Amino acid sequence: MTDFSINRLDTVDSDFERRLKSLLDWNEQDDFEIQKQVLDIIAAVKKSGDQAVIDYTNRFDRRSIQTANDLEISKESLKAAWDNLPSAQAEALDTAARRIRAYAEKQTMTSWQFSEEDGTLLGQKITPLDRVGLYVPGGKAAYPSSVLMNAIPAKVAGVPELIMVVPTPQGEINQLVLAAAYLAGVDRAFSIGGAQAVAALAYGTETVPAVCKIVGPGNIYVATAKKMVFGQVGIDMIAGPSEILIICDGHTDPDWIAMDLFSQAEHDENAQSILLSDSADYLDAVERSILKLLPEMERAEVIKASLSGRGALIKTANLDEAAEIANRIAPEHLELSVADPDSLCAKIRNAGAIFMGRYTAEALGDYCAGPNHVLPTSGTAKFSSPLGVYDFQKRSSLINCSEAGADTLGKTASILARGESLTAHARSAEYRIKS
Amino acid sequence: MTDFSINRLDTVDSDFERRLKSLLDWNEQDDFEIQKQVLDIIAAVKKSGDQAVIDYTNRFDRRSIQTANDLEISKESLKAAWDNLPSAQAEALDTAARRIRAYAEKQTMTSWQFSEEDGTLLGQKITPLDRVGLYVPGGKAAYPSSVLMNAIPAKVAGVPELIMVVPTPQGEINQLVLAAAYLAGVDRAFSIGGAQAVAALAYGTETVPAVCKIVGPGNIYVATAKKMVFGQVGIDMIAGPSEILIICDGHTDPDWIAMDLFSQAEHDENAQSILLSDSADYLDAVERSILKLLPEMERAEVIKASLSGRGALIKTANLDEAAEIANRIAPEHLELSVADPDSLCAKIRNAGAIFMGRYTAEALGDYCAGPNHVLPTSGTAKFSSPLGVYDFQKRSSLINCSEAGADTLGKTASILARGESLTAHARSAEYRIKS
Repeated sequence: MTDFSINRLDTVDSDFERRLKSLLDWNEQDDFEIQKQVLDIIAAVKKSGDQAVIDYTNRFDRRSIQTANDLEISKESLKAAWDNLPSAQAEALDTAARRIRAYAEKQTMTSWQFSEEDGTLLGQKITPLDRVGLYVPGGKAAYPSSVLMNAIPAKVAGVPELIMVVPTPQGEINQLVLAAAYLAGVDRAFSIGGAQAVAALAYGTETVPAVCKIVGPGNIYVATAKKMVFGQVGIDMIAGPSEILIICDGHTDPDWIAMDLFSQAEHDENAQSILLSDSADYLDAVERSILKLLPEMERAEVIKASLSGRGALIKTANLDEAAEIANRIAPEHLELSVADPDSLCAKIRNAGAIFMGRYTAEALGDYCAGPNHVLPTSGTAKFSSPLGVYDFQKRSSLINCSEAGADTLGKTASILARGESLTAHARSAEYRIKS
Repeated sequence: MTDFSINRLDTVDSDFERRLKSLLDWNEQDDFEIQKQVLDIIAAVKKSGDQAVIDYTNRFDRRSIQTANDLEISKESLKAAWDNLPSAQAEALDTAARRIRAYAEKQTMTSWQFSEEDGTLLGQKITPLDRVGLYVPGGKAAYPSSVLMNAIPAKVAGVPELIMVVPTPQGEINQLVLAAAYLAGVDRAFSIGGAQAVAALAYGTETVPAVCKIVGPGNIYVATAKKMVFGQVGIDMIAGPSEILIICDGHTDPDWIAMDLFSQAEHDENAQSILLSDSADYLDAVERSILKLLPEMERAEVIKASLSGRGALIKTANLDEAAEIANRIAPEHLELSVADPDSLCAKIRNAGAIFMGRYTAEALGDYCAGPNHVLPTSGTAKFSSPLGVYDFQKRSSLINCSEAGADTLGKTASILARGESLTAHARSAEYRIKS
């Protein structure tokens, strides 16, 4: 472990601001070569539909599909995957699904309306999206938990048709993913991936129906394609590397905190794990736990790279200062491993998900606590929210003016419209004023 | 009027689908020259802060600002603009503001939480954004109503600091805009515009504070800059040309409907006004009203260009078919000018705002009915919603596991994490399982 060290910062250091800023810096450079490739793929799928999808799939996923029918994964395959799952895994997935659904149901928006004295009615009508596409990565990054987290809120929202796409390189299908799709209520599934799958969902082909919104994680080609089709369809956020920020008062078992930092760091080398504490001794203890536990970890190399490159143990003057740093960072995951998490939580404004108390490991939330694990990264929690049912619903404003209401409102609208020199607006309103 | 004709379509025509699709087509081409200019402006503002903002403002707005202090419009100026407003306009603005606020208050999201039997707590915490930027166009497109529609929901959400930017070409300030800003509770205002104002809000300068989200309409430079800073800050939608779709059963005064179509068409030549009716005679009557009323209109040339280029009168088999076409178009504004708007509204899934009944002119909603006039355009109502209080609030998930809860959830998380080969996740959960 001589080749490993983790950044140590202290808020009283004169270079603290500079070092914190440089740790947080994350600029994914736009890769024009990738953008050009993706543009070409989207144009080809728009133009040639199924045939383009088949060609790219055969080429990129090393398959030999002949007809578009072979692109669909049958409902029976999904069910068979679920039926064949070992019972411990089936039970765990089912528990997770039930809890995710129960939490999601609390997020459901409902329509409302109210009447005014003159009989004018105002309201907001809530409807689910007509059809949604769910991208699921193939190969190593295929996470059944992600299928549940993306699919269940859409179905709770009432989306009638949920279409999953998942690449199956060389025909290899992840049975856990299919089982999770079955459990979550995915309506149709296609064994396609990459930018070609995103384009097919956005514009539709003879076989793949066009959707209103595409959600789910993917590699740089998928992320680039999603950005490019945005506007044609809605998309969820474009995720950056995963992050955890832990605030600890120095009284949680340091092994626990070390492992919580690892659980983020093991995702990938750019993942970010930061610990804030008001006790320098405690930071020392966690550093010792890190060095002790690291050799035991299966993904030790990834963890080492992540912790030494982007991780940090930061000494703060007190927990309030730690909370304020958390608000500046706006982390995806925030653990408050302290005796009184409620009062500390009251000071937090910016975070995707807040894990309160020593027993609430982020990993519990990643899988089965109930709240969504699709969360805003790279500081975007300052203005955005976890994926939720509300992302699969939309609002329409309702206005139904009574004759008397139109008379009153028409006078006001007329004055304002003439103030803006929009006389057709004014006259349209004035027609509804009683003569 | 011999040089003017409006498109007539009928759903039974064999070329109906093709013509409808071509009418709806709206592809704003990316202009690489503008993108490059905007990139340069953003880079300069990031690097040189105030000085870059001053330089661009002097150049593009033909001003001669010396120091950054001169960029700010004082709170006293806002108040003076309000105090000096003619009383009819002040009353109309005040009425509109009160109604917009009353409707917005119904949208406010509130935090919730619930406890499970084992003491585990789950919840969703709602917080306002820390600071928001509001872009207001200068010159002709300066609409005080837009200031109210963008600013009031932010203040209802509880945003502590709302920063307005408005260009003042050659120093010319729109007093109505300042008055509306005062009324809506804008906290600070700067007389800057264009991509340089967007960059200043996104990254902050010595004088202009960095915000979390930028909302408000602007020209192509502003829209391009907003797209480019997205991720660094949140943005509202990028609006396309305004649209109205009217469904009429043939019993509304055709002059009223003609003027409603004009009220959209007068915005700009790319605006889209479409009328659907099951009565061909009624479409003839509206066409006659259009020809009769057009010469009276101040913006007749704009209306003519818009109606002949992108407008249409469409005959449908019945009102249900009209509703289904509306769902496909997903219009920004939908007027249901029919005897029973409730039952027709029940069939509408995709629309930004729905104006129900013969008395509800879109213009009433544009100014003072209460619901927001910032609405999804170009079919994006299929997946997005009107601007609202919710756009200035964000959600954080809350999880506080009891010891017993962590024990149960830890077992489930462990199985799922090991199924995904994420062993640090598994061990982090397992530490919380009772031994």
